[in-house]
Amino acid sequence: MKKYNVVGKSVPRIDAWAKATGAAKYVGDMQRPDMLHAKILHSPLAHAWIRRIDVSRAAALPGVRAVITYMDVPQIPFTTCGHPYPFDTPKDSLILSRHLRYVGDPVAAVAADTQEIALDALELIEVEYEELPAYFTIDAALAEGAVELHEGLKNLAGESEFEIGDVEGAMAQADFIIEDTVETPIVTHSPIEPHVSLVELDEQGRLVCYFSTQVPSIMRERLAYALGMRMGQIRVVKGHVGGGFGGKQEPIFEPINAVLTMKTGKPVRLELTREECLACTRTRHSARIHMRTGLTRDGKMLARIMDIDQNTGAYSSHGHNVVFAIAMAFATLYPTPNLRFHGRSVYTNIPIAGAMRAYGCPQYAFAMESHVEHMARELGIDSLEFRRKNSYHLGDPINFPHVSVSTCGLQDAIDQCEEAIGYQAFLKEPRSDGTSKRGIGTALFSYGQSCYPHSVELSGARVRVNEDATATLYIGCAEIGQGTDTVMLQIAAEASGIPLADINLVAVDTDSCPFDPGAYASRQTYVAGHAVKKAAAACKEQILRYAVNKLSVNYERLDAADGWIIDRDTDQRMVSLKEITMQMYYDCHTPVTICQEESFAPTDNMLTFGVSMAIVKVDTATGKVEVEKLVTAIDSGRIINPQLAMGQLNGGNIMSLGYGLSEQLLIDPKSGRVLNDNLLDYKVPTFADVPPIEGYFIETDEPSSAYGNKSLGEPPNIAPAVAVRNAVLDATGVAINQGPLTPERVYLALKAAKEQEV
Amino acid sequence: MKKYNVVGKSVPRIDAWAKATGAAKYVGDMQRPDMLHAKILHSPLAHAWIRRIDVSRAAALPGVRAVITYMDVPQIPFTTCGHPYPFDTPKDSLILSRHLRYVGDPVAAVAADTQEIALDALELIEVEYEELPAYFTIDAALAEGAVELHEGLKNLAGESEFEIGDVEGAMAQADFIIEDTVETPIVTHSPIEPHVSLVELDEQGRLVCYFSTQVPSIMRERLAYALGMRMGQIRVVKGHVGGGFGGKQEPIFEPINAVLTMKTGKPVRLELTREECLACTRTRHSARIHMRTGLTRDGKMLARIMDIDQNTGAYSSHGHNVVFAIAMAFATLYPTPNLRFHGRSVYTNIPIAGAMRAYGCPQYAFAMESHVEHMARELGIDSLEFRRKNSYHLGDPINFPHVSVSTCGLQDAIDQCEEAIGYQAFLKEPRSDGTSKRGIGTALFSYGQSCYPHSVELSGARVRVNEDATATLYIGCAEIGQGTDTVMLQIAAEASGIPLADINLVAVDTDSCPFDPGAYASRQTYVAGHAVKKAAAACKEQILRYAVNKLSVNYERLDAADGWIIDRDTDQRMVSLKEITMQMYYDCHTPVTICQEESFAPTDNMLTFGVSMAIVKVDTATGKVEVEKLVTAIDSGRIINPQLAMGQLNGGNIMSLGYGLSEQLLIDPKSGRVLNDNLLDYKVPTFADVPPIEGYFIETDEPSSAYGNKSLGEPPNIAPAVAVRNAVLDATGVAINQGPLTPERVYLALKAAKEQEV
Repeated sequence: MKKYNVVGKSVPRIDAWAKATGAAKYVGDMQRPDMLHAKILHSPLAHAWIRRIDVSRAAALPGVRAVITYMDVPQIPFTTCGHPYPFDTPKDSLILSRHLRYVGDPVAAVAADTQEIALDALELIEVEYEELPAYFTIDAALAEGAVELHEGLKNLAGESEFEIGDVEGAMAQADFIIEDTVETPIVTHSPIEPHVSLVELDEQGRLVCYFSTQVPSIMRERLAYALGMRMGQIRVVKGHVGGGFGGKQEPIFEPINAVLTMKTGKPVRLELTREECLACTRTRHSARIHMRTGLTRDGKMLARIMDIDQNTGAYSSHGHNVVFAIAMAFATLYPTPNLRFHGRSVYTNIPIAGAMRAYGCPQYAFAMESHVEHMARELGIDSLEFRRKNSYHLGDPINFPHVSVSTCGLQDAIDQCEEAIGYQAFLKEPRSDGTSKRGIGTALFSYGQSCYPHSVELSGARVRVNEDATATLYIGCAEIGQGTDTVMLQIAAEASGIPLADINLVAVDTDSCPFDPGAYASRQTYVAGHAVKKAAAACKEQILRYAVNKLSVNYERLDAADGWIIDRDTDQRMVSLKEITMQMYYDCHTPVTICQEESFAPTDNMLTFGVSMAIVKVDTATGKVEVEKLVTAIDSGRIINPQLAMGQLNGGNIMSLGYGLSEQLLIDPKSGRVLNDNLLDYKVPTFADVPPIEGYFIETDEPSSAYGNKSLGEPPNIAPAVAVRNAVLDATGVAINQGPLTPERVYLALKAAKEQEV
Repeated sequence: MKKYNVVGKSVPRIDAWAKATGAAKYVGDMQRPDMLHAKILHSPLAHAWIRRIDVSRAAALPGVRAVITYMDVPQIPFTTCGHPYPFDTPKDSLILSRHLRYVGDPVAAVAADTQEIALDALELIEVEYEELPAYFTIDAALAEGAVELHEGLKNLAGESEFEIGDVEGAMAQADFIIEDTVETPIVTHSPIEPHVSLVELDEQGRLVCYFSTQVPSIMRERLAYALGMRMGQIRVVKGHVGGGFGGKQEPIFEPINAVLTMKTGKPVRLELTREECLACTRTRHSARIHMRTGLTRDGKMLARIMDIDQNTGAYSSHGHNVVFAIAMAFATLYPTPNLRFHGRSVYTNIPIAGAMRAYGCPQYAFAMESHVEHMARELGIDSLEFRRKNSYHLGDPINFPHVSVSTCGLQDAIDQCEEAIGYQAFLKEPRSDGTSKRGIGTALFSYGQSCYPHSVELSGARVRVNEDATATLYIGCAEIGQGTDTVMLQIAAEASGIPLADINLVAVDTDSCPFDPGAYASRQTYVAGHAVKKAAAACKEQILRYAVNKLSVNYERLDAADGWIIDRDTDQRMVSLKEITMQMYYDCHTPVTICQEESFAPTDNMLTFGVSMAIVKVDTATGKVEVEKLVTAIDSGRIINPQLAMGQLNGGNIMSLGYGLSEQLLIDPKSGRVLNDNLLDYKVPTFADVPPIEGYFIETDEPSSAYGNKSLGEPPNIAPAVAVRNAVLDATGVAINQGPLTPERVYLALKAAKEQEV
């Protein structure tokens, strides 16, 4: 592959110094002298109408500046999920509503001089509720005669199906038909930084919103929509973000904060507690997935059927869009000529499920890779061999519209993992030492590059070169901890020939940055990276074309690198960029500014591929699963910054281990209340829980991307959970089709299996 | 003339609400919790070396955070005058120097927790000076054997001359030769808001500079140069500016503030006192101007000679560039086939003269229009008739490079003034009532549109249209109270078809705004206005071209106005802009951002023309001159915003009355110290001093500009002073060739004239 000067290097994060020293300002760090603090009164009931609400005592409390209810906000129904506009996501949300649909739905909000006063005021709000029937499971919500959460929608936020080929015919010809049903848990994003916002008015009376968000542009558009305002009246500024993972991908309570600011005229800060973050923001859907696959005797998949019902909670949010992503994964990773898919997103009176890292694929993979393991075992074929036989090879047909593959390192990734984890050697090792059993498990994954063509998918980028050949890069895409800002600067430096240290970044302020829908779909390096490359390359061209006359050489002979104009023929430095750019501005007869704004929109969706393998030790006495080693190999195309990429790989893998082993948001089946809304009872892996993880990048050179790159942020979050589940199966012979594999669940499954044997 | 929707209307200033309510934040209003306060120790001597300086006692004072001297700053010689780079303005300045050249030159600076501590610390700095010979007048500085203020420059900051035609030949043929020498005073800008800056470091360690400045881009470039930094490391943000008038057109002590910030790591605020503003910032040059004109018997000018020496003070600043502007005015307003010009800018040990409203033309006009009056009287021709005969008529040749005239309302302006002030009637009125005498006086003026081609002359503008057809306009040109921001929005609204209320403005932050050298030369509406029009029109075109397919009509039939796409054939609204722009962003297959950045650079210099006439009453007992009426008519092309334009006319006229009647910075001829560094002794006109002023715009339609406009900000500041001087001559018969016409000077002149008679 071609070598680059900046791309492919592990340059340090540009925010490293600021974050390490504490100089970095998060939204929570922002202070204003006259700032108010907001608190929200949440519904104690899973489904109710507000019969009467009286805020007069709360409003009279000294230090309280505003109390708002549904009567004080625009009653404009909207969807919080901004990017798929104008697609058919139900407009089922209000900023504050009289109709409460889960324990946590906001009833009222207070802005006061201190947090303490605001909390006291909440207790003075008098509410009479009229309780309504509540449903917490898919089956209850879809049962005949169930009350509708949202009028006219029959408790379905969405339903999709497609069929390719002749599924029934193929099933009839199959030598084997394997069937599985798998259930996945509700989990939460749990970023270290809670949801926090600071909203104030500028001197023109415009709303200035400091948000911890993944989607600044979308937040502005949605806020304007919900508030019935013009977008020009709203400015959204993204602070540093202490993790998003999909949970900060839509407005949640930020519109409430905006209303309080307009009501009081003062800056208002709204920081959710950890309890609110866990119980009242967004979750990853729980899903029940039924699969049926017909195979030939020699283990080739002929036909596959998948039925998925996901519990989307009280409001649609990203709900049914997640099912689209699942459909894509279902259709592509294991090319099968005959496919049928059916998916539903079901409203219930539990917390709202939305976008979460890998957008449905962790659920899908947990089911599918369990199912694949089942098939291999049933047919008596080695699990790796079975996957090699059925998974995608370059040139295989793609059974899904708007997806194409021109690079695929999947088979190399399987080889790499097999080698790195010592698969063949492990197969020969003793597996049991009496109290514990060891096993090895595998899972494959694939993932797209963007939302094309199902949502707005467009990134702008602007590069301005200063008089002295330093430059500024303007992007609308969102650094949320993953390292985008650094990667975008690398691309700008590579494409412009200006040293990275000479390029300053402006991101993200909707007042000064180009449009970009934001950080999701692992889209940014692919989509925004392209726009950055175009803008930077256009600036370089502008400078080189100006230099042609000054240097009396052909344009074709000129290039720029590291701050110099280079002679392509001799690789010699000819003149510094600075000397030329200063002339461009100060040329008294034909001066020109050096600035280019470009946008990019994909016209296809590529696939990233990979595999995770895990070795586990299961304590059969306690059910505790210990991951001894986890190996992941991924074809994310060319890696722009290896160190940052490895951070994504490790982080995604660890998060998936939490999904597979310990995390589950528990809902009280009586009240609908979240039972474990704290990080003691909701168990996110800590560093003490992290096993040895090895990561490998199988670098391909994707021709459709800026520098050969493909998606990277979400894919590592897909497979480890199910690789571990498969390893537990390998160790114990017991197939556990419901996650997470907590000690309790494993213990009970082993016990049940033993009882069945007896 | 064509009618427009927004251009030509007196829309309210966009900052009106914020300024009227006090919401508008000036730099002086900005506070930081850990902010330090800076104070400067100024030289007590007019010319000296620092033999020894000891800051240890000051540095040890509790609360003092930094003390700096010339030893702590880069010793990179630079010119504070940024825009004419790379022309030959002497690089004669340092941030802090060991060589002190006027009373007020900075010796050292302190940053401390409070202003009081900083002032106390100044007193603890021990300095031993070695005094050097000091010169306060042009003649003393140019005398044989005078010590050089700046090595090798012979006390000349610049010298220029040109000759057109055959001056000596023409003089030999002249029927009359009239000669005059006129002297003009030193005056100061005296904006209400003093010079103030707040400099802090951002989390990347970049310098963020909040300046009250007319030239944000130039400040960044000059600061980087003087500090030896890359421009990308510096961000300049302009606050609201409470008046500039040319005095905030270059770095003065801001680089000192930047050094203190880098030294302490904390935000540092530096606000000059009124005394410092008057004595240590910038002034308008005093000048001695000698003129000699040869005329035919019937009053036609054949040849003119002008010799000008201006006292530029201790450093060059804009010094000699002012002489260029004088040369242009000299050559163009009275077309004369034979011209000779010679100008010098002379270094002396007095405060630094720089740019001030109308950049040399008030000095020039005070001389030339006195001289013209002298000629008319000498030849016995009515003053208005004489001016009509000799001044510019459309089609007359232009004796100056890069100047051209395609519109000229000068003769109409003279007619308008003659009518409005009742010239013919006044000539018949009784002039004297015993103790007072009345007279009428006239002065013409002309002015360019920009600095083309003598300086950087380039403006960028960017327009971004949001998803909902609201928009943002980004400009680098500087609102300093004159109303530019409002005018630029009017132009953007007119050219884009988006309502003005839907366009938000981002200005001026060098991190987010396009390049623009700033507010001077009355250039902004002409130069930046053009860039704004181009960018806005390009956005409109982009939208209309997209709409062609949606509406199935030819592009030529479409236009946009007031938020709608209009059918040009029927003037009917077809579809809202919002409907189209939302589709442009959310089109899933070919989405596009709507954003255009354009720049404009003039390729010629047009002329604005006008005339002021004044009626005065002179109290012959006291010398007090009372202006009874002042009328100004100006051809500034088409007026974009009549109310704002009238504000410029009135403000400029009042400022010129101060120049003509009361303002003069007095320098102690012994010490070089400013004697009247306060607004009690330095007499700026107050509202009580303002006479009835009538203003008229003779609207022409300048084809080279965005909407027919020509320069407006400075021209009204040129003529009233000398119109009043000529009126005093008319009233009393006494020609006073030195300004200002204070009661003392008039009284003495009348007395001297009387004694001569006797």
